[in-house]
Amino acid sequence: MSVGKVLIANRGEIALRIARTCRELGLRTVAVYSTADRHARYVAACDEAVHIGPAPARRSYLYVPAVIEAALRTGADAIHPGYGFLSEDADFARVCAGQGITFVGPRPEVMEAVGDKAKVRALMAAAGLPVLPGSEGAVGSPAEAESLGEEIGYPVIVKAAAGGGGRGIEVARDRAELREAFRRTTALAQQVFGDGSVYMERFVPAARHVEVQLLGDDSGTVVHLGERDCSLQRRNQKLIEEAPSPLLPEQVREALGAYAVAGAARVGYTGAGTMEFLVDPSGAATFMEINARIQVEHPVTEMLTGVDLVAEQLRVAAGERLSFTQEQVTLTGAAIECRINAEDPAAGFRPTPGTLAVFNPPGGPGVRVDSGFAQGDRVPPDYDSLIAKLVVWAPTRAQAIARADRALAEFEVEGPGVATTIPLLRELLALPEFAKATHTTRFVEEYLSR
Amino acid sequence: MSVGKVLIANRGEIALRIARTCRELGLRTVAVYSTADRHARYVAACDEAVHIGPAPARRSYLYVPAVIEAALRTGADAIHPGYGFLSEDADFARVCAGQGITFVGPRPEVMEAVGDKAKVRALMAAAGLPVLPGSEGAVGSPAEAESLGEEIGYPVIVKAAAGGGGRGIEVARDRAELREAFRRTTALAQQVFGDGSVYMERFVPAARHVEVQLLGDDSGTVVHLGERDCSLQRRNQKLIEEAPSPLLPEQVREALGAYAVAGAARVGYTGAGTMEFLVDPSGAATFMEINARIQVEHPVTEMLTGVDLVAEQLRVAAGERLSFTQEQVTLTGAAIECRINAEDPAAGFRPTPGTLAVFNPPGGPGVRVDSGFAQGDRVPPDYDSLIAKLVVWAPTRAQAIARADRALAEFEVEGPGVATTIPLLRELLALPEFAKATHTTRFVEEYLSR
Repeated sequence: MSVGKVLIANRGEIALRIARTCRELGLRTVAVYSTADRHARYVAACDEAVHIGPAPARRSYLYVPAVIEAALRTGADAIHPGYGFLSEDADFARVCAGQGITFVGPRPEVMEAVGDKAKVRALMAAAGLPVLPGSEGAVGSPAEAESLGEEIGYPVIVKAAAGGGGRGIEVARDRAELREAFRRTTALAQQVFGDGSVYMERFVPAARHVEVQLLGDDSGTVVHLGERDCSLQRRNQKLIEEAPSPLLPEQVREALGAYAVAGAARVGYTGAGTMEFLVDPSGAATFMEINARIQVEHPVTEMLTGVDLVAEQLRVAAGERLSFTQEQVTLTGAAIECRINAEDPAAGFRPTPGTLAVFNPPGGPGVRVDSGFAQGDRVPPDYDSLIAKLVVWAPTRAQAIARADRALAEFEVEGPGVATTIPLLRELLALPEFAKATHTTRFVEEYLSR
Repeated sequence: MSVGKVLIANRGEIALRIARTCRELGLRTVAVYSTADRHARYVAACDEAVHIGPAPARRSYLYVPAVIEAALRTGADAIHPGYGFLSEDADFARVCAGQGITFVGPRPEVMEAVGDKAKVRALMAAAGLPVLPGSEGAVGSPAEAESLGEEIGYPVIVKAAAGGGGRGIEVARDRAELREAFRRTTALAQQVFGDGSVYMERFVPAARHVEVQLLGDDSGTVVHLGERDCSLQRRNQKLIEEAPSPLLPEQVREALGAYAVAGAARVGYTGAGTMEFLVDPSGAATFMEINARIQVEHPVTEMLTGVDLVAEQLRVAAGERLSFTQEQVTLTGAAIECRINAEDPAAGFRPTPGTLAVFNPPGGPGVRVDSGFAQGDRVPPDYDSLIAKLVVWAPTRAQAIARADRALAEFEVEGPGVATTIPLLRELLALPEFAKATHTTRFVEEYLSR
């Protein structure tokens, strides 16, 4: 198996990110784009580009026949799905395989196993990972839910098994709330994900979101590259991610790495993936889920390790071994990623698409910017509002915070009607709670409602 | 001694570079600017800005009374001189001291000792460093030069003791050429540097330029941060710098580090400095000179070490100790810096100042850009033609070369009449001589005349 030309089935900054590594590896690239993205930078950055449909994702980036046809027409022998869109769609991976195209991701059956959030819970428990008390699989009926609610103890969380991106999650504090949560989550899951299965587990009210970066290859080797802390989020949308996770006791850090490797090995995981954990204030960690793709926040890990995660994905997809061993992974210093969105925090985080009349990213020591835009580009209203990821590295966390603030202060983004999260990000970075790293995943919402 | 407000007596990318670190350290900054630089980015990036005169450097950036007055007026307690301009002017450092302002650099007497290229040769020889056969100080007369020429053996090089930036250097292959070289160099040195002293040493026709980064503090501690290879240059102007120096035998690398520390300790060196060596094809290294300032190419070292060299300069200037020991210095991977100049290589490297209608720097993994410009800015005709330093890091040299090429390919610079060295830099990076690292300092000129 080898890869010479890669179709990038995504858009925006991650499509450009993947194209950059392909170029460095000497691989040819094919962009696919919707009408709304026809002037996007990632399209120009690829060797070839294929228009695959109008702006709505279901008619372009999610429309499998158009993506496959673009790959066949251009002779691409691999498809990198990025994150979101088709990245965790096992059926799409099967269609690729059926057409002789290498899908850059885990095998379809592995994607399926880890994609069902109820099943993976049981698999990981069997591999020795700590899971929260909860259902052993999908919950079949309101009555079963109620009986489980008594067993687990309130509050409980009801989650769509096929969910993702923070959707299809409800918390119930008693039997009455559980009945409603069960009904609503089932209906929403059926409607949004086409699969009404839900599962339940104990709700941890105040915890940190800590995730471990994984890489596996066909030889059965699995390594981890340390953890990222994504506790600074709003409504399950991450705002700031960092590594290492501050205040994490060393034995918990080591345990998370070992859990991630054991769990991934258990399911024969290959390629890049992330295992998410909740860590409560006592340091107790429990398995949450596996994301079978490259993550938005992967640069944080790249800054600490010097590893190009996309290059490793492509190696593994081409049947090669990882380019390093666990012993060769070194984690140096501290990195922070700030997600700069075209949103107005003062107006309920309403997206503010528009033309970037001014767009001057920061530079200098320890600064990395991943953006799909340049000055004069238009942010289309059709997709997420991420306009840039600012990632900084410094020897210590305090220095990384100072550097992130410096770089955010330098970052000029202006355009008619365009607001950004830059002022909010600077505000959050300056808070004593962030400096002390005492915040949990609920902190931002509490802070914003002060 | 402590520092709270820093006046940056420089312009362009290095002024912005220094302002970035000051901001991260919580220090206030004062920019000084000429009329030509009134809209420059570094001016806006500083907390305060003082106009110090018209475009010609001798009437602004080199005009000591205006710089000192700006510092006194704004209450700056330190002056960082950057590189060039007043950075190696011991008299300026003395004026600062006289006004109670901390000069960010070595003590004036040290600057003087290392700034006289004939004197420092003798000092370093006494410290045990290998120097080329040559004069023991300034050469007094044509007759003395001729007698030395026989003793050293031709070819010999005649250098202005006060020279710099590649000016005031001539090679003589026989007695007749020497007589002419002595006459011309003495006259030029008197005219340009105000000091006609010249010295002589054996000319090494094919060598690599390898320089060691140094840091010293008031406690007498001197550390080195490994070497940079600056062999890819044209007429003594560096085009591409890298670290580590490829093909350098490990025992030579270690010897250079030890020489640099011993030599710097000998003269009581404090702050950041660079010791330059010539390394001939046999691996034999000889001392060339000491640059008593931050260098243009310092980011290469920052990429390998994670050390902020400007922050260490400021620490030392404030009377603090270096933030790390020699044992804590780790050199990881490979870094390459490409100097992007607004020049037209096809027209004898004629400067091409003008408005940057398009200026999109590259991003993504392992890429750092230091530039004093943004889209829409005008490159003034009054100063050097450096518009950006592109610095990349990767685990190996081959990967760093691929990354540098990728990033250069992404870098969009356009404007009426503006040409850049980007195409030439890509051409040089792609040459087998560069991949094999067999090039010496003469390579680029030979290559361009093919």
